[in-house]
Order: sequence, then C-alpha cells, then structure tokens
Amino acid sequence: MTRTDRTAGDTPITLSSLLSPRSIAIVGASDDPARPGHETLKALIAMGYQGAVYPINPKYPELLGKPCFPSLDAVPDPVDLVVIAVPAAAVPGVMEQAARRQVRMAVVMSGGFRETGDAGAALQDQVVAIARAAGIRLIGPNCLGFANIPDRVCAAFGSISRVPRLEAGTVSLVTQSGGFGYSLALACAEESIGFRYVIATGNEADLGCVDLIDALLDDPGTEIVMTYLEGLPDARALMQVGRKALALGKPLLVWKGGVTEQGARAAATHTGSIVGRADVYRALFRQAGIVELNEMSDAPDLVKAFQCHARYPGMGSGRRAAVIGGSGGSAIVFCDAASQAGLAFAEFQPATVDRVAALLPPIGSPTNPVDLTAGYIGIRGPKAYADVIRAVLDDPGVDTLCLNFASSSPAGTVAGAKFLVDMAGDLRKPVFVFSSMHKSLALEAHTMLRDIRLPVLPSPVRVAKAMGALATWAAAREAAARAPTAGQAPADGGAAAAPASLLQADGRALDEVFSKALLRSIGVRTPGEVMVPADALADALRLVQDIDGPYAVKIVSSDIPHKSDIGGVRLSVPAGAPLQAAIDGVVAACREHAPTARLQGVLVSEMVTDGFELLVGVVDEPAVGPVIVLGQGGVFAEAMGDSTCRVAPIDAAEARSMIDELRCAPILRGTRGLPALDIDAVVEVLVNVSAFAWAHHGVLAELDINPLFVRPAGCGAVAADALVVTHAPAQSSH
Amino acid sequence: MTRTDRTAGDTPITLSSLLSPRSIAIVGASDDPARPGHETLKALIAMGYQGAVYPINPKYPELLGKPCFPSLDAVPDPVDLVVIAVPAAAVPGVMEQAARRQVRMAVVMSGGFRETGDAGAALQDQVVAIARAAGIRLIGPNCLGFANIPDRVCAAFGSISRVPRLEAGTVSLVTQSGGFGYSLALACAEESIGFRYVIATGNEADLGCVDLIDALLDDPGTEIVMTYLEGLPDARALMQVGRKALALGKPLLVWKGGVTEQGARAAATHTGSIVGRADVYRALFRQAGIVELNEMSDAPDLVKAFQCHARYPGMGSGRRAAVIGGSGGSAIVFCDAASQAGLAFAEFQPATVDRVAALLPPIGSPTNPVDLTAGYIGIRGPKAYADVIRAVLDDPGVDTLCLNFASSSPAGTVAGAKFLVDMAGDLRKPVFVFSSMHKSLALEAHTMLRDIRLPVLPSPVRVAKAMGALATWAAAREAAARAPTAGQAPADGGAAAAPASLLQADGRALDEVFSKALLRSIGVRTPGEVMVPADALADALRLVQDIDGPYAVKIVSSDIPHKSDIGGVRLSVPAGAPLQAAIDGVVAACREHAPTARLQGVLVSEMVTDGFELLVGVVDEPAVGPVIVLGQGGVFAEAMGDSTCRVAPIDAAEARSMIDELRCAPILRGTRGLPALDIDAVVEVLVNVSAFAWAHHGVLAELDINPLFVRPAGCGAVAADALVVTHAPAQSSH
Repeated sequence: MTRTDRTAGDTPITLSSLLSPRSIAIVGASDDPARPGHETLKALIAMGYQGAVYPINPKYPELLGKPCFPSLDAVPDPVDLVVIAVPAAAVPGVMEQAARRQVRMAVVMSGGFRETGDAGAALQDQVVAIARAAGIRLIGPNCLGFANIPDRVCAAFGSISRVPRLEAGTVSLVTQSGGFGYSLALACAEESIGFRYVIATGNEADLGCVDLIDALLDDPGTEIVMTYLEGLPDARALMQVGRKALALGKPLLVWKGGVTEQGARAAATHTGSIVGRADVYRALFRQAGIVELNEMSDAPDLVKAFQCHARYPGMGSGRRAAVIGGSGGSAIVFCDAASQAGLAFAEFQPATVDRVAALLPPIGSPTNPVDLTAGYIGIRGPKAYADVIRAVLDDPGVDTLCLNFASSSPAGTVAGAKFLVDMAGDLRKPVFVFSSMHKSLALEAHTMLRDIRLPVLPSPVRVAKAMGALATWAAAREAAARAPTAGQAPADGGAAAAPASLLQADGRALDEVFSKALLRSIGVRTPGEVMVPADALADALRLVQDIDGPYAVKIVSSDIPHKSDIGGVRLSVPAGAPLQAAIDGVVAACREHAPTARLQGVLVSEMVTDGFELLVGVVDEPAVGPVIVLGQGGVFAEAMGDSTCRVAPIDAAEARSMIDELRCAPILRGTRGLPALDIDAVVEVLVNVSAFAWAHHGVLAELDINPLFVRPAGCGAVAADALVVTHAPAQSSH
Repeated sequence: MTRTDRTAGDTPITLSSLLSPRSIAIVGASDDPARPGHETLKALIAMGYQGAVYPINPKYPELLGKPCFPSLDAVPDPVDLVVIAVPAAAVPGVMEQAARRQVRMAVVMSGGFRETGDAGAALQDQVVAIARAAGIRLIGPNCLGFANIPDRVCAAFGSISRVPRLEAGTVSLVTQSGGFGYSLALACAEESIGFRYVIATGNEADLGCVDLIDALLDDPGTEIVMTYLEGLPDARALMQVGRKALALGKPLLVWKGGVTEQGARAAATHTGSIVGRADVYRALFRQAGIVELNEMSDAPDLVKAFQCHARYPGMGSGRRAAVIGGSGGSAIVFCDAASQAGLAFAEFQPATVDRVAALLPPIGSPTNPVDLTAGYIGIRGPKAYADVIRAVLDDPGVDTLCLNFASSSPAGTVAGAKFLVDMAGDLRKPVFVFSSMHKSLALEAHTMLRDIRLPVLPSPVRVAKAMGALATWAAAREAAARAPTAGQAPADGGAAAAPASLLQADGRALDEVFSKALLRSIGVRTPGEVMVPADALADALRLVQDIDGPYAVKIVSSDIPHKSDIGGVRLSVPAGAPLQAAIDGVVAACREHAPTARLQGVLVSEMVTDGFELLVGVVDEPAVGPVIVLGQGGVFAEAMGDSTCRVAPIDAAEARSMIDELRCAPILRGTRGLPALDIDAVVEVLVNVSAFAWAHHGVLAELDINPLFVRPAGCGAVAADALVVTHAPAQSSH
C-alpha cells in the first residue's frame, strides 16, 4: 500500500479520457476461468462493453468468441487501455509494448511487486519509470482494477467483475482493499444504489486513492464519492480533497481502517498518551467536512441521505428532529437514538400544535412525537396525513422529520409512499421513513420513494444516525462558507512562531526551563520562577528572593521527563528554611532514584493553585503532522478521559469549538456558583501553540502544557509545567 | 401500560394450556377487512389452524366460510380461548358470557380502557374482576394479541396477523409495543429465524411482560426469549426472570425503550446528576445476565449467536478473538471493531504459527489475523482451509473465531460453507462468518450454515458485537454459577444497616453532621470534627481544641444542601485567629446569601487532602429502587464523567467489578510511581452503603459521599462530606 512516487498534481487527471477507453487490450487473457485475464474478458462481454476488446495471449487463436492476438504489438488498431495480467517479471516488457502503442492507461493486476519485498519494489519502480516516460497512467500493480458502470467498462477481476452486476448511478467508490471495499458497494447495491466508477487501487505505484478522489470530484457524473482506505502517506492531501468536496457540495464518505493502535503508544507526554489514532482521524474528518463511515449499513444509509440533499436547497445544519407515526414504541426508540446521535428534540410552536390537533382523534398526541393513533390513514384518509406532515414541516422549529411506517403492512406501506410522492414538492426539509417491512414485500413503495430520493431505512436508530450525519455535513459546509481558508495551513506558519533556531531535531526532551522559555516566546504565560543552577544550590534562598512564596520546587534534568514519578517535585513549600529543605530534598531524590541523570539545577516557582487544570499539547501523528490536543489536565490527565484534538494549524473559532466539546466546558463557562473562567486566554494559548507546532513541523515531536491553570475571566491562563520533545534527526517525519 | 393488579406468582402460568387452545371464538368477527375481528379470522384460516373456530356476530350467518354465531352462549361446543374485538363498553358482558362458558383464556383487543383515562380504567378493573372470579387469564386490553406459530394459532390482528408469515422456531417474543416490537420479529424473519410465541401485551391488565417471560422460560419449546418493553412497574421482577433465564441457559434479549431522560433529573446530589436511566438499566441487565438490544440488527444477529451456544458445551467467557481470511481490509475492520466491542486479540502459540505457516504460501500471514492470500481455497483446496481453521481453534489462547468470506463470489461462498458443514463437529468454539454476498445470491450457503447453527453476518462490526455479547453472557453465567445468590436481596437487608429509626421519610436533606453520623454508624470513616452550635460560635476555638489543624470550616443548615455555592465552606484554614475568622466568614456568607435558612451551626473538621477523590452515592430509581453509584469525585464530579452503578444490594465481588470499570482504576491500583490506594476500603464502603440503602428502601431518596478520600493501601478511605436526602412521605416509591 505504499506509494513510491507522486506525480498527481503535476498532471491533472481527466477520468473521462482514462476510464472510458474506446478499446481495451487484455494481456494475459486466458481460457482458465480462475485467471484474472479470463474474468476481465468475460465481464466485458457480459456487461456489454461497446468498444473494441483485444485478448492477448500467444496460446490461443480466439477466446470467448473474440480473436486473440499473440502480443500487444500485433493488435492492428489503437489501444486506449491495457489490462496486464501476466506474471510480474513479464510486466516491464508489456509496459514497453504499451508505450510503443501509445496506450494512455494501464491496469496492472499482477502481484509480485512492492508487497513482496525489495526485489518486487525494484521491479515496480522499473514499471513505473517506463509508464511515466511514455505518459501512461497506472492503476496497481497488485489490484483488482476498475469498472466504469455506465460505460460498461470492466478492467477488473474478482468481485468487481462478477455478479451481482452493479446498476449505473452517481456514486463512485475508491478502495485500497478490493475485498472489503467492494463489500461496501454490495451493501449499496442491495439497496438499489447505482455506481459510476468502482476502483481498487492496489499498490498505488502511480494513481493513489487521494488522487483518484480528487479527479472523481471533477467528474460531472459523480455526485458522491465513497472510499475505504488504510494506508495514507499524506493525510493532509485527504483533508484538501475533503475541503474541495465540501466546496463542490459533493459528499465524501470515508471508512478509515486500521485506527486501533496495537498496544499503547510510546509517548513521553500526557498528550501523547491521551490522543489515539482514531481521535486524530475523527478530528481530521470533522475539520475537512469528510463524512465518516464505521458500519457497513452506513454506506447505503448515508448515500440515501446525501442523495436527497440537493432537494433541500435551504437545508441548514439544524438538529431539531420531529417524528410522526402510529407506533408509540417506534417513536420512543427514535427519541432514544436521536439523543445519542446528537439531535435535539423539536418543540412545536403553539400554532403547529393547534393545526395538528385539529387533524387527530382526541387520543392522538399533537406534540412531538406526533402520535397519529393506530390505523389513522385508513380512518382519516391520506389528505389528513399529508396535512399533518405539512403542519410539522412548516414549523420553523423543525429541521428534520422521521415518519414511522414501522411494521405497517405491505399495502399500508405502499399507500404511505403514494402520499409522499404526491406531496414530494412540499418536502422542503430532510424527511426520512422508518419501515421494517421486508423490501421484497414492499418493493413498489421502496421504488417510488427512491425515485423521489426519500430515504427509507429499516430502523429508527439508523434514521437518527443518518440525520445526524446530514446535519454535521451541513454545518461543515456553513463553516467553510463563512471562513473558506480556516483550518488550512498559512504559508508563513502563523505569526506566533518562535524563532526556529530555538528548536533542533535532536531527539531530546527539553527541560522545563527551556520548554517554558519557548512558551513565553509565543505569548504563553508562565509563573514567576528562578532556575537555581546545580552549582549554586547553597545560595538558593538569595537567588529566589524576588519570587513570592509558597513555592513549587522541581528538579531540572532533561534526562527526567516525569519529575514527580521520582520524587523530584515539592509543592506549596513555605519560604525560608522549608524552601531550602525542599530544594535539598528533591536533589537527594534525584540522586537516589536517577543516579545517572545529569542535574541542571532546581526550578523554584510561584505556586499556582487558583485555577482549573487543563492540558494543552501537541503530538506529531505519522502522515498527519502536528495535532493539537486540549483536555482536562493534572497529574491524572489520562484518567480524566476528557479531551479533544484538531489537526494544526487552527484558528480561534476552531479553538472555541474544541472547548465546547469538552465535558468540563460547563466548568469553564462558570457553574455551581463559581465564576466563568478565562476561555479567551485558553483560545489564545491553543492558537499560539498550534502556530508554533505548525512552524516547527517535522522537528517538534511532542509538547505538553500540563497543568495550564485557567483563572477567572480576565485573569488569564498560566502554564505551570511544560515539556517539549523533539524528533531525533532521522525520525523527522516530514 | 400500567398494570393495576398482579396475580402472577400466585398461580403459575402454563403456556401450553393457555396459548394452545383447541377452539377459538372471535367475538366481534366482521366482514370488514379493516376490523380486527376480520383480520384474526382470516389469519387463522390462512395459517391453517387445526382447532375449531367460531366467529361471533349476530349480523352474519357465516363469515369466510365459517358458520357465525349470534353470541358466545350460542356456540354448541367448548371454547378454550375467546378473542374479544367489540367496543369497550360491550367487553364486560362478553367476559361474563366467557365466564359462564368456562373459557380459560381471553385476548381483549379492544381499546378504550385505562389508556383513555379514569372511566376507561374503571371499565378495565371491571373486566379484570369478572375474569379473575372465573379463573380466566387475560392478554390486553388494547393489544394486538398473540400468535403461537408452531400450532398455527393467531389470536391477533395488525402486523402479527399479516404477511409475511413467520416460520416456526424456538424464539419467543413478548412486546409492549405491537408496532415496534413486531419490527424485531420481521428483522429476524428476514434472516429465516423461526418463532414459537409472539405476544403483544397492551395494557397488561392481567398478564404482564415479566409474567409472560417467566412462563416462556418454562416452555420447553422456547430456547430464546426476546422482549421490547417500555413501562416496567417492577424492574426487580425483570431481574429475577433474568437470573432464572441465566440459570436455565436460555438467553433473555431485552430492548428497553424510553431510557432517554426528558431534561435533567431534579437531583439534590452529585450522584443524582451523574447517573441516568440508561446507566441504571444497563447495570441492571448486566447484573441479571440480560442481553441488551439497541439496534434492530441486534435481534437477528444475537439470536444467531445464541442459537449456536448449545453447540459449545465448554464455551467460556473468553474474549480473545482470531480472524482468518483473504481480505486484508476485512481483517483490519474486524480488529478495529473487536477492540471497540471489548474483545482482545488472540496471540497464537508458536506451535500454532508453525502449523498455520506450513499451510500457507510464503506471502500469507500465519499470525493473527491469518491472511490466507487471495484465491487460497481455489489453489490449496478445501482440506488445507479446514486445517488452518482446526489449527487456530486448537490454540488454547483462541476463544472465538471470525472467518472473513467478505465479497467472495456466490460460488466461493457456497464452497466455503460446504467445508464448514463437513467440519462442523470440529467447531468447538464460537465461529462466525462475515459475508457481504447478497443472501439471495448465496441462499444455499446461508441455508447450509444456518442448519449447522453457524452465524453468518453481513459486517465484521456486527460479528464483533455479537462475539462480545456472547462472551458477556457466558461471563454472567459463570458468575451466577460461582455465586448463585450474589446480587439478590438478602432477607434481612444486610448486616451493616443502621438503625432504621435514624431515618424518617420526611423529604428532608439531612445536614452534614447527621449525614456523617449515619455513615459512621455503618462503618464509614469520617474526619475528626466538632459541630459548633449556632449559639456557641464565640467559644469555637475552645470547643475544637482536640482537633488538629489545618481545618475545613463549613456551615451546617439542612436548608442549604450545596454549601459551597453560597460561600459556606473554607478549606485549609490554619489554627487560631484565622480559624475564628473563617467561622465568622461562613456565617456571614450564609446570612447574606441564604438569609432565611436556619443555621444549626458550623462544622470544624480536620482537613483531609491526602487521597484520591471518589464519589459513592445512592439514588432511588423509580421501579428499580436503590442504585449504588461509584465515580471520580470532587467539586466537579459531573464533569469527570467517570462513573458506574449497580442495583443494590451488592456484594464485595460486584463492588470490585465497579472499581474495575472506572477510567481511574489504574490510579487506584497505583500508577506513575504513586502507591496503590486502599481499594479494600472502597469495597467496604460500597458494600456497607449498599446494605444501608437496601435496608432503608423507600425512605432514602439520595445519598452522596463526595469526596471520599481514598488513601494508600492499608490507610483507609475517609468521607470528607456527605449528604443524605429522604423521600417525602407521599413520594416513598415502594
């Protein structure tokens, strides 16, 4: 899954020319049904491909009724696309023939390249070099290939080439795993969702997943892009295509596999221990407006939800849901699920309640959830039902609506669908139907509702999840429209960057004194403090006379990142003799528990206690770069489990949204009679640390401000302890 | 949904006699297809019911080919079951006829009873009284009725009576919502799962959900009971049937609707704010070994998982999962999901790795996840595939196995299923198959695997969730077998109960002094402290001379539950003049901010700071009774979001399991060079508080020990603050 070279970006990819060939040659075509070269040929015939097909294999005069050619050179007419399904060692020779024939695109199915080791990697590099010199774009090697469903092109083997045949549509799928990725397509196909392109990328020697997403977004026939990906050499490139998708209004649905860490991360800081890969990718997706998939059923559900978004030009990011139905149980289950999906419960205006009440029998409920009572449509008729829906959708406090068909009979489901088709023009806000009737028994209803792009889902829980995803995406679009460049890397690395010379990639954990100096240089407040050098410890009391007690006393040694673990910290130390005793005590503890550590001295600080403890930190996530973390802080920061993160750099609005996500946000805003704390100061620290991290991208490995004491509004935030760790020169990740 | 009287328990219910009638009368049978009386008659004929059917309606000589009778009295032969589908007002008369005819069972479909108000409730009581006097058991009123699938009985209307017809099987469903509950049956039916009884309970005037579960567990034809329930007047009765199900080895699958609180709970304590209804029910289910459903697909998935448990007589509660397949992506997705489902990743023994390696091509992976490489079965043959599976299942470190068929072709899926059928006898641990192939295209494979009870699920995420549920249930069975009475209410309320006379249901928040006295009486340590009465404040320094400073100084007033909110608390106060100043200060704050509060005095305590802050508390949950809560404590306990709960009473083992669930458990066990804390002392507090809460069930409304300072192992735990709230006499919930 590693990509050796990147050329995308140099040359824009036009999918219509590459993936809609007028002629296809299959090198390695075969009469053995188990061989890829056979499967491709068979699929092209079965799908009814209209262009010319040239099987290539010296062993056969013809294959499946097509004349077979001994070599690519022997094909008399131009070849647009070559599918290569011969052993790896033979691939360079085929690619040279392809170059001579001015082929524009190649799919290399053969395995035996980079995935097998160094020799395979060299062979892969050779193939790419030939292709590149000839201007041939390449999918693979070691891939299932691609299909262009509307044009009946199948340059693929395995599941992509077999039944069930996908219907043509507007969803394009790019996957780094042929097997699992295609499962997503099958789950959609079962719900009659049609596809445009399906591409399995294999080793990505030339065209990678992100390049292809980028190109698919430019494809007029693609409305939604779905992706399964594992390896991602440059996650920032994914963010960029995410933003592009958002700007174009084409939802990008991504399943990221491999987010579970194998064992704990080896981190020097609290920050590094707190933030996991899944957290980072969730943040990245959120910042880029990428829609996350994490269950198979999400694929069809969210495609259905997003296919209807164009119907709601004024669709906002509102999360106030209403529900109408005759099954009390379904309404209760929807409410439980809505609450978990972050939806709010719509409260109707009095006028709405009156309108609905006039349409219901006395034992119905005209408030949300609206209980029509059992058999309502049969008794009151379809017009009354439609009027209830109109009344609810007219309420300005309703953003989205769930209609519970529940276990209505097939006939009832069809009747319900008919009313909705008749009133489709009035459905100006997202409307979902929950129906548990077998699709096979209510196929007519499903087809009618699909035609008006109204999503029918088989569980209220899935309705709530899809509603939540739609609102989150709409919110990302709104945010991107307000601040189109927010979250993108400023060219200059931000104004608050400390001089780069301060930081060197030498794999060190900087001591607290140096770490705090760095923070002060970017505008982060630290307590008044004095570093007493190791050779002046006897003179400590005189040196610290300008600092008011009580004191925090800590050893300073770049060999000891976790001072408190070895007894190297004393807090709330009074002035005078106790201070000298504390200094002597931490030095003794250091000598005893870390005898080989070099001791730079002892740091004596004003004791800061009057604030709420947060943690602000940075980790350098592979393939992502600097990630900024905010959480509840203190000695037990990990156990708090209250943190959030963003891909750096971030602006003030993004920093505020981080604070809003913390469980402790009510404390920061002032709770239980306590004053509001200085949220503005926290925002400033976050933005400055983010800019610093971005400016030192590749050098900074981890950064920890813990605790950051947040004081009442107007009184600032103070970094009481800090730790900066740099990459070793060879480990610099970018 | 309220149940007026309980008779179950008095008379054991034998379902075979009640739900397998030899003859059925339908009072209110009709020729109008929209009427319940028509639907029932039609369904009985369509299902092929073999007993006698008597439509009753004076308007018709015959209905659907059956002779129709003018009244129940006119039926010449014995009637076992009467279905009543006439207007509510006519139901008592019909019930009287039924009594005369010695009917044993009635299903009252008619609405218009308790659900409509007081008059309806009186009518319902009248119907129940007639039935009870005649020994008639009753389902309903206001219900869809029931079906007995193997015996082709349908005493139901609505979805239960319609297509699709359920197949006969061993799952029984009881639901308080006909509409939603039946959706669960439909979801199972789509997966070819068969049913025994399906019962919608309606108003539960006689037979309630829990009574019916109890009876179904005694039914030899029922292997699994599934329930959707909302209202539950006595959740402890559900716990009891849960334990019975566990003892019998019959899984009880419950979907509890209505767990989302509408708005925040009005609680006087931190404890009350922290614990939600969903948390309480999750704990209750866990304690009773009840399997929780919270998504529609859980119903078929978990039935499939549990239907196979009998195949694994030695199945343990192990959570170490292995995965075998040819799709790298599917394995990665399974690993991500397994981690979220609380499964561990099996590590193979060296001998297993060697055995598997000998069966794989060089580029395969013989460690977990096993990568067979694409096309493995075609190349190496089915025997090699079976040998890989045997090798993995033989490893003692493997508890459960997922086989990824992923998007294998229909033919490949069938081939894979055949190998599994051949080796079914060797599958001695739970094995699941993930296949994304349309069921319709691989029906043969699905049928073969269903016949050997091997679950095939359409997503690795769902496989992981089902594996987790199976292991959790097995663990509950093991725990119940070890300690069969654990978690059940001791008859005497436990040894540590404080004298009941101390507590009176007067709706008061007891002051800190009284609250702590209660705690001391049940063996909970509190700090050394002296209550300085309001009229002796000037003499405070002399009164507290036996207590060592620094001090915590707090006002005592039962009118002020949250002392710190009004400035009524001063901490770390030195001895002497500062102490007197602090006492005067809190009194002044009280006079200023709560001028009408009665001030009992000022409590001066030893300042406790040397421990980790936990919270231990009790809430009295409606229908459940006392629930014991443990969490991270302190002023901001709510923001910690780190808590767990159990239905009281609990024993020491259950208390330890609560500690294990906290995010801060590593801190209690000793982390970052800090000593292990006194977990035994926390266990003792939990058990004693639990016994106290149980003994004062109905009187105690809320209890809060916050913070409970936990000191290093052997040094105990100290309740630094406490608040006890009693129910008002009328609000006593039990």
